[in-house]
Amino acid sequence: MSFEVIQRDKNTRARLGRLKTFHGEVSTPVFMPVGTQGAVKTLSPEEVEEVGAEIILSNTYHLFLRPGQEIIKKGGGLHRFIGWNKPILTDSGGYQVFSLARLRKIEEDGIYFNSHIDGSQYFFTPEIVMEVQKALGSDIIMPLDICLGYGASYWETKEALEITLRWLKRSIDYKENSNMETQLLFGIIQGGFYRELRKEAVERMLDMELPGFALGGISVGEPKDKMYEITDYTVSLLPEEKPRYLMGVGAPEDLVIGVSMGIDMFDCVLPTRLARHGVFYTKTGRRNIKNAQYKEDFSPLEEDCDCYTCRRFTKAYIRHLFLQHETFSYRLLTIHNLRFLFRLMENIRRSIREGRLEEFKKEFLTQYLANDRENRLEKEEVWNKLLI
Amino acid sequence: MSFEVIQRDKNTRARLGRLKTFHGEVSTPVFMPVGTQGAVKTLSPEEVEEVGAEIILSNTYHLFLRPGQEIIKKGGGLHRFIGWNKPILTDSGGYQVFSLARLRKIEEDGIYFNSHIDGSQYFFTPEIVMEVQKALGSDIIMPLDICLGYGASYWETKEALEITLRWLKRSIDYKENSNMETQLLFGIIQGGFYRELRKEAVERMLDMELPGFALGGISVGEPKDKMYEITDYTVSLLPEEKPRYLMGVGAPEDLVIGVSMGIDMFDCVLPTRLARHGVFYTKTGRRNIKNAQYKEDFSPLEEDCDCYTCRRFTKAYIRHLFLQHETFSYRLLTIHNLRFLFRLMENIRRSIREGRLEEFKKEFLTQYLANDRENRLEKEEVWNKLLI
Repeated sequence: MSFEVIQRDKNTRARLGRLKTFHGEVSTPVFMPVGTQGAVKTLSPEEVEEVGAEIILSNTYHLFLRPGQEIIKKGGGLHRFIGWNKPILTDSGGYQVFSLARLRKIEEDGIYFNSHIDGSQYFFTPEIVMEVQKALGSDIIMPLDICLGYGASYWETKEALEITLRWLKRSIDYKENSNMETQLLFGIIQGGFYRELRKEAVERMLDMELPGFALGGISVGEPKDKMYEITDYTVSLLPEEKPRYLMGVGAPEDLVIGVSMGIDMFDCVLPTRLARHGVFYTKTGRRNIKNAQYKEDFSPLEEDCDCYTCRRFTKAYIRHLFLQHETFSYRLLTIHNLRFLFRLMENIRRSIREGRLEEFKKEFLTQYLANDRENRLEKEEVWNKLLI
Repeated sequence: MSFEVIQRDKNTRARLGRLKTFHGEVSTPVFMPVGTQGAVKTLSPEEVEEVGAEIILSNTYHLFLRPGQEIIKKGGGLHRFIGWNKPILTDSGGYQVFSLARLRKIEEDGIYFNSHIDGSQYFFTPEIVMEVQKALGSDIIMPLDICLGYGASYWETKEALEITLRWLKRSIDYKENSNMETQLLFGIIQGGFYRELRKEAVERMLDMELPGFALGGISVGEPKDKMYEITDYTVSLLPEEKPRYLMGVGAPEDLVIGVSMGIDMFDCVLPTRLARHGVFYTKTGRRNIKNAQYKEDFSPLEEDCDCYTCRRFTKAYIRHLFLQHETFSYRLLTIHNLRFLFRLMENIRRSIREGRLEEFKKEFLTQYLANDRENRLEKEEVWNKLLI
C-alpha cells in the first residue's frame, strides 16, 4: 500500500497519481461517490462501477448507528456486506456528529452525542471510532476530529485543533496495537480559516508518518473565495509524496479548481443528492428536469453523454417519471450526474497527462459558468481571480 | 397476429400457447408485470427483461392523465417512450375510474370522472379510450367497461353489463375505422358474481370476432372461493382457440390455480407493491424483510433463487437498507418477487408440457400454504376443495 506521483503538471500544482490499497488501486485525482448507509443511493454496485467509480466513501457514523459494525463484521466486513469489492474509504463520524447529531458534549476523552435517528446517547472516542472502522474493514480510515463551522473564533478553533491533534495521536497508537495493517489511516488537518492554525496543524502532523492528509473543516458554510484560499494555502504546506483529500467537496467547478491546487481525492453527496431533486449536470451548468421546457424534449439529458441514462432515455420520459415520483427517475439522474463527474475527472487526468490542464480548466469553467444564473456575479469574481 | 394452443393438459383446463403480437411473441400462460406510469416501479427495462418478462401492462388511465397520450405519441409511441421493445398491453382505464377516480357519473355515452391527482374533470367514452390507446400504440388494448365491486346487486350488474357490451361494440367500430390493425382488441367479460350474467356476456361476445377474452370484475373484494368459482365457470364458457386473460390477479397461489382453470394471461401489482412494503415471496409463503429474525441472516432471500438479488446480497443487508428507506432495497425485493413469479410460470409451463400440472399444483400449494398464518383456515378450506 502506497501512493505514487506519476506526473506533475508544469503550470499548476496538479498531479497524476496512483493510490494502492488493500482492495486495489485508484487513479488520482479521484472522485469518490458517497454510500452513506452502505449503498450509493438508488444504485447497484455494478452501476457505481459502470459510471467509473474506483473507490467509494461510506459513513462510519451512520453504519455505527445502523446496522452497527458488529453485524457488518459478522457479515464478512463492509466490502462483502454491501457487495463492493473495490476500495472503500470511511470517514470518522466527526463531521456527522457536528452536522447531524444533537446535544454534543466534547470532553478530552471523546464526544457525547445523541443519535439523529432516535435521540439515544452515544460516546465516540478516537479508539471507539478506530475500532468501528477496524470492524468495517475499510481501506482508508479517518481519525475522530472536531469539525467546526465557518465563523468559529480563533481560540475556539485553536482549542478544537489541539484536541483533534491529541485524538490523532491516540488513533495512531490504537491502530499500531490492533492488527490494522491493511488499513490506511489518514490525518485530518483542521484549523478553520486561520492560516497559522492550518500551518501549525500540518507541521505537527508531518512527523507522524501518515500515509495521507485530509483537509477537514472546509465547505462548512464559508464563501467560495475563502474555501479556495484556505485550500490552496493548506495544500502548499503539504509534502509532495502523500495524497491530499479534500473532504466533502465535489461540485464540478470545485473538482477542476481543487485538482489544480494539488488535491488528489474528493468526495461529495452533491451529484447523488441533486439527482434526487431533479437536478442534472451539463457542460453548460446545472439544469432541473422539472422545467416545463423539457415536457416534449425527446433528446437525452446531454447530447454527447455516454451514460446509460443518455443512451436509453429522453428528457421528456425522465421528467414524466420524476413528476410522478417514480424512483427509477432518481436512479437515471444519479447515473448521469455521477458519469458526468467521472468523465470530468477522466478529462482532468488526460489534461494533466497532456500538459494542458490550465487550458482545460479555463474552457470548462467558462462554459460551465456561462448559463449559471445563481450566484453568477459572486462566482465570476472568484473564478476570474482563479483564471488569472 | 394470432393465438395458438400448443398443448393441452389432460387433467385440467390448462394449456400452453403462443400469442403473437406486433412487437413479438409471448409464451402462455404468462404473467405481465405492471408499469403503471410507463415503468415497472423501481426497475429498468433491462431488469424487467432479465427477470423473465415477455410482455408488460401499462395503465391507460394514468398515462392519459400524465404525461398525456399526445406527448407519448410525439415521443414515438409508448414502446419507444419508455424504452421497452417487447409487447405491451394497456387496460382501458375502466377499473381505475372506479377504483381511483372520484365523483364518477356514468352516462350512456361514457363516464365523467375527477382525476385522483388534482380533481380536474375528464370524460371517457369508448372512442376516447380507443383513441388514447391508438396514440400509445400498445399491442393489446382494452375497451372501456364498467367494473363493479363485490356485492353489487343483480340489476345493477345487469345494467352495467348492458352498457359495457354496447361500449364494446362502439370500441370495435372505432377500431375498424381507425387504422389500428397492429393492435389486438380483447373483449372484457363482466357480469359480477352472477353466473347467468357471465353466461350472457360471453354468448353475446362470441360472434364479435374478438382475438381474446379478458375476465373483468374479479378480485374486487370477494372471498377467494367466489373468485375461483366465477373464474372457473366463466372460462368453461369460452372458446378453446382464444386467449383468456384474468385481469388484476397474480398472487402465486392464484397463478397456479388460474392456469389449471384455463387462464392464459395474468397481471397484478402485488409482487411489485409488496416488495416496496418489505414483503418477499418464498416457496413456503410470504416473508417480511423487516422481521428481526433477519438481522444477522447472511443468506439470500431464497437459498436456491437465481435472481440478481439472491445471487448478490444477504437478507441482513437488504433489511438494513430497507429500514433506512434506501430505494435500492425496493428494487432488490421487486427483482426477487418478479423472478419468483416468472420462475413459477416457467415451472407451470414445464409441468403442462410434461403432463404433471396437477402434481405440481398440489406440491406448490401445500408448501406455499404450510407457513401461511394469515387466513390459514380460510385458504385451507378453499384449497382443499381445489386440491380434490
